[in-house]
Amino acid sequence: MPTHATASATPDSCHHADGSTRPPVIRTDILIIGAGPVGLFAAFQAGVLGLKCELIDVLDRAGGQCTELYPEKPIYDIPAVPGCLAQDLVDRLLEQCAPFAFPMHFNERANGLAEVAAMPAAEHTPGHEHAHRLLVTTDTGKRFNVAAVLICAGAGAFAPQRVALPEAAALEDRHLHYAVRDTARFAGKRVVVAGGGDSALDWALALRKTAARVTLVHRREGFRAADGTVAEMRAAVAAGEMDFVVGMLGALKTEGETLAGVDIRTRDDTVSLPADELIALYGLVSEPGPIAHWDLDMRAGRILVDTSTYESSRRGIFAAGDIAFYANKQKLILSGFHEAALALRRAYHYAFPEKALVHVHTSNNATLKEKLTHA
Amino acid sequence: MPTHATASATPDSCHHADGSTRPPVIRTDILIIGAGPVGLFAAFQAGVLGLKCELIDVLDRAGGQCTELYPEKPIYDIPAVPGCLAQDLVDRLLEQCAPFAFPMHFNERANGLAEVAAMPAAEHTPGHEHAHRLLVTTDTGKRFNVAAVLICAGAGAFAPQRVALPEAAALEDRHLHYAVRDTARFAGKRVVVAGGGDSALDWALALRKTAARVTLVHRREGFRAADGTVAEMRAAVAAGEMDFVVGMLGALKTEGETLAGVDIRTRDDTVSLPADELIALYGLVSEPGPIAHWDLDMRAGRILVDTSTYESSRRGIFAAGDIAFYANKQKLILSGFHEAALALRRAYHYAFPEKALVHVHTSNNATLKEKLTHA
Ligand SMILES: Cc1cc2nc3c(=O)[nH]c(=O)nc-3n(C[C@H](O)[C@H](O)[C@H](O)COP(=O)(O)OP(=O)(O)OC[C@H]3O[C@@H](n4cnc5c(N)ncnc54)[C@H](O)[C@@H]3O)c2cc1C
Ligand SMILES: Cc1cc2nc3c(=O)[nH]c(=O)nc-3n(C[C@H](O)[C@H](O)[C@H](O)COP(=O)(O)OP(=O)(O)OC[C@H]3O[C@@H](n4cnc5c(N)ncnc54)[C@H](O)[C@@H]3O)c2cc1C
Repeated sequence: MPTHATASATPDSCHHADGSTRPPVIRTDILIIGAGPVGLFAAFQAGVLGLKCELIDVLDRAGGQCTELYPEKPIYDIPAVPGCLAQDLVDRLLEQCAPFAFPMHFNERANGLAEVAAMPAAEHTPGHEHAHRLLVTTDTGKRFNVAAVLICAGAGAFAPQRVALPEAAALEDRHLHYAVRDTARFAGKRVVVAGGGDSALDWALALRKTAARVTLVHRREGFRAADGTVAEMRAAVAAGEMDFVVGMLGALKTEGETLAGVDIRTRDDTVSLPADELIALYGLVSEPGPIAHWDLDMRAGRILVDTSTYESSRRGIFAAGDIAFYANKQKLILSGFHEAALALRRAYHYAFPEKALVHVHTSNNATLKEKLTHA
Repeated sequence: MPTHATASATPDSCHHADGSTRPPVIRTDILIIGAGPVGLFAAFQAGVLGLKCELIDVLDRAGGQCTELYPEKPIYDIPAVPGCLAQDLVDRLLEQCAPFAFPMHFNERANGLAEVAAMPAAEHTPGHEHAHRLLVTTDTGKRFNVAAVLICAGAGAFAPQRVALPEAAALEDRHLHYAVRDTARFAGKRVVVAGGGDSALDWALALRKTAARVTLVHRREGFRAADGTVAEMRAAVAAGEMDFVVGMLGALKTEGETLAGVDIRTRDDTVSLPADELIALYGLVSEPGPIAHWDLDMRAGRILVDTSTYESSRRGIFAAGDIAFYANKQKLILSGFHEAALALRRAYHYAFPEKALVHVHTSNNATLKEKLTHA
């Protein structure tokens, strides 16, 4: 007869039939999905309110659109921060929330959402009772059990713009790459780099030293890249260290599971290049992603929220920033800041249903001051 | 028979029977009432949107509560501005809106509000047609004819906390003063300074050099003032350069229109002090002020607004910041910033009913960049 030993295993870890153990469920007050400017300020606000939170982002770093799309452009309309580069804004927001040291999980995409029962009565922590909690799962299998979710997913999850050719999907991650993670795998290979931005040029230049041959393919003579990098590339081509072809990918040729070559459609012709690896660096696109299937009322791909709480149509699920929608919504970073601040004040009651939230101005909050000053 | 000459006098200036001319009406797109943090950022936003605006404040400088109540305290929750003194925040907001050079009218309290007809057809400027405009008048007689009003009046108009004694009102501005504007008028006089904050101590110390005698009156031994100033005052008292009495004003004695002396109620006794001038520096209180009579739907002294436009119950009249009220409203500066930004986007349509407002991010707005960079 089974003893109670099995039952007393922590209910948040999961023993599989094959003996493997999934990582334990992470239990916190709030999960913030998206570490763009709004998600970062939301984390700070959570800290101010005494809420614990964790953040996830599908990218490998914080900053959202500011970091991915226009890090070097100045933004003028952040209140009291006249003329600040987008990346500097992100750095300031990171600095502001740093004292709370909330975990940020990168390369994690929020996939699934489920309502789960609150802890069994025996495990109640006073003040943590709640009718239901939410379980968010990511594409890598991380699980977060939280009182509330704040979605700051912006225009959606960023993903590389993919090669729109029928053979592409089967080659992906094997011989077709949308990012360079490990340069060693390209050593001695014939590499085609497709794209006309800084990263295409930078990688073509970097890999020419170890690859058998690097060919850069771009649809026109002009580049969206730093002048110096373009000049360096042209010099490398002139010196015979690499090739540059103006044209578009026309077809990928395979031999079994491997890449054999790519056809390039130039203005008048088609050129066949032998190739072992293709790196396509066309930039990022944003995808509505799995959140679109979370059963939230949406408008044109965005989450409909109530403008006094920024709560969605599902209890405990909030949205702030570009992903939120309401009448007269403006895609302004400053609006996301306000939306997150209000959302978290409402979310507080899901985390601490029995506590009143008393507003103390940050300038009058001695505990907070201590924490922020000595960080 | 009267000619048309009278009728063709500019409709915005007004000839009185006594021959005096009132200053011409100021015509602009938006009047912002209150130059606290929210009013200042609203001015910047108006500039970004291409709206003309003017600001008024009943105080003699910008900054609202930040400047009047806690200039030296750090605020932690302004997004991307971790730990900034309240006065520095105001200075940054002033810097941000400076390139637009909008007129700021200080020492002007908004008093009256009326709806007025748009200009006669002959005077129409294309794009400026509007069913009605608003006329705001101030206590000094300034008049603003505007398409929309944005009320950023915070906790109301600041006013000095007054002496609550029956004789006080008649002496006000003659021998009872709530601010020191002209030190010369106290030379050779017996001056009583009442209050326990920095300004009471600073003025008592400053005036002791030219007054016949200065007596500081405060209800207890402790002060809400810088330690150094308190020490300086105690040294001056020890050196016989001024007096300090612990007690409260009990009665003001008058001789005709002038002050003769004040009675101070001490713990056990009443002390009669001969005095020519009384300076009461008890700090500021905020008063609901005339806006409470503008026929707007209010809740607990605050203006009820719609949370997608921050428009009040009267068309063309908007409110943002502490004076605005809606469900879950938080008195956070960052909320006021968002409210003002949305209010002005709606107000834009009152100023330019025939133009569509196309959102251009500040970082993509070349004209604006030019203006802000070369300011
Ligand atoms: C060129 C340009 C200039 C701009 N200029 C200005 C300006 O001057 N002023 C201004 O106010 N705004 C400006 N903006 C808009 C501003 O950048 C956005 O409003 C802002 O980035 C929105 O912030 P956010 O945090 O809501 O979303 P985002 O910045 O889009 O960040 C969302 C984050 O969520 C992540 N994410 C999404 N889905 C998931 C998921 N399922 N799981 C995990 N992570 C996920 C994404 O990877 C991303 O990192 C500009 C935008 C652009 C493109
Ligand atoms: C000690 C203290 C600490 C604080 N700490 C924080 C903090 O850490 N974070 C935070 O977000 N907030 C904080 N606040 C609150 C913050 O200061 C207010 O939310 C903010 O000042 C509101 O800005 P406002 O522009 O709406 O109004 P105000 O700052 O009140 O300014 C309103 C202005 O309007 C003027 N006015 C009013 N009526 C009229 C009229 N009829 N005619 C002409 N002028 C008029 C007034 O004179 C005033 O200058 C704090 C407040 C205090 C007192």
